[in-house]
Amino acid sequence: MITLYHCRDARSFRALWALEEMELPYELHVLPFPPRARHEGMKDINPLGTIPVLFDGGERLTESSAIPHYLATRHGPSPLAVAVDEPGYGAYLNFLVMGEATLTFPQTIHLRYAVFAPPEARRPEIARDYAEWFGSRLRNAETMMDGDFAAAGRFTMADVSLGYAIKLALSIGLAEFVTPGMQAYFERLAARPAYARAMAAQKKAED
Amino acid sequence: MITLYHCRDARSFRALWALEEMELPYELHVLPFPPRARHEGMKDINPLGTIPVLFDGGERLTESSAIPHYLATRHGPSPLAVAVDEPGYGAYLNFLVMGEATLTFPQTIHLRYAVFAPPEARRPEIARDYAEWFGSRLRNAETMMDGDFAAAGRFTMADVSLGYAIKLALSIGLAEFVTPGMQAYFERLAARPAYARAMAAQKKAED
Repeated sequence: MITLYHCRDARSFRALWALEEMELPYELHVLPFPPRARHEGMKDINPLGTIPVLFDGGERLTESSAIPHYLATRHGPSPLAVAVDEPGYGAYLNFLVMGEATLTFPQTIHLRYAVFAPPEARRPEIARDYAEWFGSRLRNAETMMDGDFAAAGRFTMADVSLGYAIKLALSIGLAEFVTPGMQAYFERLAARPAYARAMAAQKKAED
Repeated sequence: MITLYHCRDARSFRALWALEEMELPYELHVLPFPPRARHEGMKDINPLGTIPVLFDGGERLTESSAIPHYLATRHGPSPLAVAVDEPGYGAYLNFLVMGEATLTFPQTIHLRYAVFAPPEARRPEIARDYAEWFGSRLRNAETMMDGDFAAAGRFTMADVSLGYAIKLALSIGLAEFVTPGMQAYFERLAARPAYARAMAAQKKAED
């Protein structure tokens, strides 16, 4: 049985969404945020103190952009992963990582200095810098997509990674940095049944 | 023919080192840093304006932690990638991403506010925060390794990703945040012939 530790709407949503896309059975734990401070024993589950944490047999993964590809290959083969010899395999791997390293991390710096820091430690100019940095990179990333999707001209786990970066932006007040094209892309992703099941699953686990 | 755009000792070193580990032929362009400002036509090569940029047939990759795995699979099979059905496949994918998203990105924020910003825009307290953040995550990551290596008990592309994060820390004055165990790990990596060839190749291309 796969077990996922998750915080509502946090980057671990990628793992939850990917589990639903794969239609795999899993046990879900929704933790209060930030789990490092608010979930006893968190460091035993993950020394980094972060979410996601996904256990699957002897494997433990903690990086939200690695988990979707892991699931689609270890529990595949699946068209949700681009195969090694398919055109677009490089773009697929690239967008998987880009969704997190290039497009989510700067948003977390924005959040830190705009929201999470105690009032005296907030730095509006730095929060703004990283919001703009995110916007610039997202506009550039849009030009690298393959038609309606991140890679290979079809929905893949790369869209789960990229799509979450847009979901986060829209939910933390950065919509002005998301082009109409990327907003429409996100709406198409959010209309997927697996996305809706993931949203329902995190709500149910909190009730 | 594979073509790599690189800046000396920057995160694109991962791609260069991986090419040498795979013993693949490639053409190397070493650009001045930052390439967005200092290399004409950079946005035509990569809309993001960043390095690395690796072209291989119809593929273009720009994420330094995706490229090593791409090379070891598209040009594999190779023991430098952990296979989908091998124990440690999850930890391997996880450390590939962690090397960049969790362990390199915070160092680039440190660099920005300690070094690259104009003097009036430097923020020593933020630079220090992110240096400490890096150090804490690196100590935690160390406890998740598999013996002498990141994953699967042998040298893989995950060590290229993790090893570069330590290389960067040691070269920008963050050695105090690298434990003796991780310094010894890095010395073992740097003693590999492919690492030495990558160091020589970037020097030769600049001459």
